[in-house]
Amino acid sequence: LLATAIIDRKRDSCELSRDEIQFMLAGLVDGTVPDYQISAWAMAVLCRGMTQRETADLTDCMLASGNRLPRASDRPRVDKHSTGGLGDKVSLILAPLLACFDLDVPMLSGRGLGITGGTLDKLESYAGFRCDLTEDEINRQLVKIGCVITGTTPNIAPADRKLYALRDVTGTVPSIPLITASIMSKKLSASLDALVLDVKCGSGAFMKTLPEARELAASLVATGERMEVRTMALLTDMSQPLGRMVGNACEANEAVEILSGHCELGSASVRELTLRLCAELLVSLDQFPTREQATTSLSNALSDGRAMDRYEQMISEQGGTFCRRIDLASEHIIVAEHCGWVQAIDGERIGRAVIALGGGRQKQGDRINPNVGIEMLVRIGEPIAAAQPMMRVFADDTNKLHGAKRYLAAAITISDQAVSMQPLLLEE
Amino acid sequence: LLATAIIDRKRDSCELSRDEIQFMLAGLVDGTVPDYQISAWAMAVLCRGMTQRETADLTDCMLASGNRLPRASDRPRVDKHSTGGLGDKVSLILAPLLACFDLDVPMLSGRGLGITGGTLDKLESYAGFRCDLTEDEINRQLVKIGCVITGTTPNIAPADRKLYALRDVTGTVPSIPLITASIMSKKLSASLDALVLDVKCGSGAFMKTLPEARELAASLVATGERMEVRTMALLTDMSQPLGRMVGNACEANEAVEILSGHCELGSASVRELTLRLCAELLVSLDQFPTREQATTSLSNALSDGRAMDRYEQMISEQGGTFCRRIDLASEHIIVAEHCGWVQAIDGERIGRAVIALGGGRQKQGDRINPNVGIEMLVRIGEPIAAAQPMMRVFADDTNKLHGAKRYLAAAITISDQAVSMQPLLLEE
Repeated sequence: LLATAIIDRKRDSCELSRDEIQFMLAGLVDGTVPDYQISAWAMAVLCRGMTQRETADLTDCMLASGNRLPRASDRPRVDKHSTGGLGDKVSLILAPLLACFDLDVPMLSGRGLGITGGTLDKLESYAGFRCDLTEDEINRQLVKIGCVITGTTPNIAPADRKLYALRDVTGTVPSIPLITASIMSKKLSASLDALVLDVKCGSGAFMKTLPEARELAASLVATGERMEVRTMALLTDMSQPLGRMVGNACEANEAVEILSGHCELGSASVRELTLRLCAELLVSLDQFPTREQATTSLSNALSDGRAMDRYEQMISEQGGTFCRRIDLASEHIIVAEHCGWVQAIDGERIGRAVIALGGGRQKQGDRINPNVGIEMLVRIGEPIAAAQPMMRVFADDTNKLHGAKRYLAAAITISDQAVSMQPLLLEE
Repeated sequence: LLATAIIDRKRDSCELSRDEIQFMLAGLVDGTVPDYQISAWAMAVLCRGMTQRETADLTDCMLASGNRLPRASDRPRVDKHSTGGLGDKVSLILAPLLACFDLDVPMLSGRGLGITGGTLDKLESYAGFRCDLTEDEINRQLVKIGCVITGTTPNIAPADRKLYALRDVTGTVPSIPLITASIMSKKLSASLDALVLDVKCGSGAFMKTLPEARELAASLVATGERMEVRTMALLTDMSQPLGRMVGNACEANEAVEILSGHCELGSASVRELTLRLCAELLVSLDQFPTREQATTSLSNALSDGRAMDRYEQMISEQGGTFCRRIDLASEHIIVAEHCGWVQAIDGERIGRAVIALGGGRQKQGDRINPNVGIEMLVRIGEPIAAAQPMMRVFADDTNKLHGAKRYLAAAITISDQAVSMQPLLLEE
């Protein structure tokens, strides 16, 4: 096998064999295939596509490039993955909530990427919280409390880590087969029984249109099923942030509100989506005959404090100092210039504003200020009066506040005519 | 400007600005844009294409990355480029022949590439011949005898040299805009007035089909004209080797036969093509009113020995020891297994056989044995008797001969039915 011949074949739209895919990934990891050949190959994959068989082989070879987490108990193992959206703090609630139902939830999460925040960054708002657990520590915590949210270990899918770093700087991120293999190799390395996928669609998401989101969801589900893991996907709306809060500590605070059973109206979408994703998993594992029964039990675990207890345990097991409400930076209100109805919320601008506040990274390795962020006070379809508060900005620096305001000035579009509400769940 | 944004734009099929193209090439030359970004960009260019404006800007930026040869005299400057084919020794005849017509022919040529031989390798069959002339030496020789065939100097289009080396190992060679810019930047660096292009088409050529060859020819001519050089292209047949000989010294010998006016029937195609390419240039410069008159004068320059004298001068000016017939390796005849008509000649197999004999390179830097090669004794359309000699192989090693015979066994297809002759000139 020759790297150049494999690049040529993909460039000429041929289907690659498992051996050819394995050759490229092994060469990437051991350095025998140089980066300039890998990046040309990745661009050819992006332009020419891959079949489901190729995508599954790519996933499996990436998985096989590293370790799988060994089983810690005989409880079923489940996980959720979201393709990333603004204000998505579902993982913080979902992991402890499912752990109340005799499931193990070994959640290997990531940092903020582009305009969307990262689950690990949100949890690090608790002083001392550790995201670098070893495989032993992960398993011990699973045995003890059934849930863990941490970064991937260096031994998990090293081929994916190297390929992702290269894709990030060579224009080869937006490829359905490459995204699929990257997500599924990391998730399946935890030896799961079931996986639910939340594929976001809209202005604040990576996939802007429903057909794109549908294609990615189909690719993820097909790959999961080829690899013998019960896999479901929901397509959900990301034409506006999920819930009220966007930013690290403020999203952790919102998660705690929901975990404690007291949920403001603006946070209803987070609660609804979390319950739905959990119910899908519980029904797929035959723990409940119907989604309605699962949802009732899940609501009870929120209202009677069990999920909250589990969350507190998880934070303290991982070295963090839990607190009900982390202090945020100073508040600044942004009001509507004229009356009307909220027609659109530009996720890109909201995300850039949070980065401008210091709540996200301009480049890898940047330090994040957890205490800044934005609270959305309106949602699409709501009537607005002139001078009505639309956003509450948490900022600790006047210059950064001005920077953020430049993005926020045009982030919300107000229409003269009534606008219908946006449904959260677009498709199953 | 950011390399990643430029890659993204080409990936998304946008037209790049001249500044964006210049940014990538400057980054390639000074190392500020890493190879893995250049190769991903080249693959995006291959998959998404470039407009004529982008291609001309790419050519111009490559040209501007190095020196142009200064003018040595007030004679018009001309050159020819062939896209490469088996047995193509036209340059060896064309350069001294045109120099007899008060033209300067500063021919910057290359080494063998893939299965096709290189003009420099053929000329190095003369002991001592130098292909590394400096710009001063090139100009002095032009003033003295009007023709020179040498390698490009390190100062000619360094961006092209670096990009070509990277394309060669990243599957990004067969891209019309990238091929166009590579050819035209090198050729135009010689400050030409007119350029004639011989675009080969067929089994022994890079472009296998007429539509592909037509597209490349159109791109080359459009780029030349945008850059204000009279540019013409002929599409010529490469479904069989050009002339009789394939190999280095044996092609030099065949060129000398034609230069001396004594041309065997099997070499008629080389003579015909050379005269036609020369006539195109002479008419484009208004040296003759018609192609017919130009051809008559060109034939005279061959038959009266002027072109031959000029060739001998060129060889000796560049340090080579001229001889009329360089000794070749031992002869071995390959005969037809059954009677019929020659239907097809597989250029790929003939080329691989020459490499197996040691007459071409398996990898960069391999030493070439100039004295091996193959003489084709039949052409497409000719009737064949059983056991009739079809090829004469010049080999100096039994193992290599056996290796070559494995390729040659299936190189010529014989049909039961009559096959028509193949015209040499396909389109202007």
